[in-house]
Amino acid sequence: MKIIKSIVEMREYASALKADGKSVGLVPTMGALHAGHLSLLARVRDFCDKSVMSVFVNPTQFGPAEDFAKYPRDLGRDCGLAESAGCDCVFAPSAEEMYPEGYGVGVSVGPIGDTLCGAARPGHFNGVATVVLKLFNIVSPQAAVFGAKDAQQVAVIKRVVADLNVPVRVITAPIVREADGLAMSSRNVYLTRPERERAANISKSLFEAKALFEGGEQSVERIKERVASIINGALMKTEYVEIVDPASLRPFDKVIDGAALIAVACRTLESKTRLIDNIVVDCLH
Amino acid sequence: MKIIKSIVEMREYASALKADGKSVGLVPTMGALHAGHLSLLARVRDFCDKSVMSVFVNPTQFGPAEDFAKYPRDLGRDCGLAESAGCDCVFAPSAEEMYPEGYGVGVSVGPIGDTLCGAARPGHFNGVATVVLKLFNIVSPQAAVFGAKDAQQVAVIKRVVADLNVPVRVITAPIVREADGLAMSSRNVYLTRPERERAANISKSLFEAKALFEGGEQSVERIKERVASIINGALMKTEYVEIVDPASLRPFDKVIDGAALIAVACRTLESKTRLIDNIVVDCLH
Repeated sequence: MKIIKSIVEMREYASALKADGKSVGLVPTMGALHAGHLSLLARVRDFCDKSVMSVFVNPTQFGPAEDFAKYPRDLGRDCGLAESAGCDCVFAPSAEEMYPEGYGVGVSVGPIGDTLCGAARPGHFNGVATVVLKLFNIVSPQAAVFGAKDAQQVAVIKRVVADLNVPVRVITAPIVREADGLAMSSRNVYLTRPERERAANISKSLFEAKALFEGGEQSVERIKERVASIINGALMKTEYVEIVDPASLRPFDKVIDGAALIAVACRTLESKTRLIDNIVVDCLH
Repeated sequence: MKIIKSIVEMREYASALKADGKSVGLVPTMGALHAGHLSLLARVRDFCDKSVMSVFVNPTQFGPAEDFAKYPRDLGRDCGLAESAGCDCVFAPSAEEMYPEGYGVGVSVGPIGDTLCGAARPGHFNGVATVVLKLFNIVSPQAAVFGAKDAQQVAVIKRVVADLNVPVRVITAPIVREADGLAMSSRNVYLTRPERERAANISKSLFEAKALFEGGEQSVERIKERVASIINGALMKTEYVEIVDPASLRPFDKVIDGAALIAVACRTLESKTRLIDNIVVDCLH
């Protein structure tokens, strides 16, 4: 597996693959890899001949009070895991390589970045969109794979690709969960042992929401209440529970009358870890 | 010459050229072509096998009080001129094709868009950068050519390309002038006859600034005063006269001690036409 740190070299590698008739798929990550990330590598191989995984803790998507400094970093471990999952190339640029002195241009994602996680993280999705567009321009992949756990990120990137006519196919891979249902996340390592045990209630609340909906409950309010009560009852504090259109992220008003994304964010009380999860329900299912 | 109005068809045409081993150069315009635009087509052929000229009056770069509605439009005439200048393809999408219902993502160019023309046209360069990035993503050109008359546009696009790692080479072509020195502009048609005669004083002021500088005058203040007095003395109102670094657009402080862009914007008093022009001076010349 190739490990590349410079943009020029990354471009050359990708160009050489394309000149050789190979399609290239990109898996953008911030490292701290877990089985969820590795499932994205498996997914990209369904679409492309060669896989590039970027490992870059992107400073522009962290707020000033967020966990940029303490975000887990271990490139050696990440490369080992990526290689074991069949990755062809890890692209791990430095912050200086990606944002040299004097940079000032970014992507502004508009209203879709202001809701859900964006409400508590102003500018976050502009930072995400900017770094993803940069990675797209550096690697020129045919396809890129994103995990469904970051549902708003998926919606935002699809919006960026549509609105800026970016010639990249965006593919989503399903959430990968721990045995007890907790969505895999690089931030799960922050959890204390009791928090880790109680964190399974997040996914439990979503599975119950889905069961309620499939049992005939269509009330936005009642489903949201049920989700919040399970999470808050497990010593976590919900930041939001929303039921929205999966593409536009616009909230359903009173009843769910179409495919809906039920999305939650909450914080644990001890380590203040911020966790997100979601599930999609659909009238047709 | 091919005329294309749909994004899908434009992509297919550009892909076919590339599959055939041809390099593609893009000349983005808002139509209302004059000899300046045609010189860009000549320039693009120095670098690329095939030329695409986009003709699109981009609504997102006009302010609410600006001349979007009355901006001159004549696609038939533009196609005739482009063809006579050896253009291979005109891409002329509709506003709905470029900005369908629900679009919300754009490029934010940062501080470089707030100075010079950007000070009086808030959001203008975000609109320019957004449409140019969209055109780059649709056509995937190897190179794109911009006229030096819009010096801030050139600086902004170079900044966008650098900061977002856009794989397009940006080429500048010199200002093309009328016999009396007036920089060619699609907006010159707005001028009344007496305004048209007096408008030659804009370039005259810049040529005089250059002569002053080359004669040893380095004072920013004195050169700016001379430029403003010539323009204002010819019954036009200067919006700005600035002496800045051509790449960063940061103003020189007291003396010109490097390559400098002397840029002016002014308005005529009768038709209120906004005209811009500029000249580059360099200590080494």
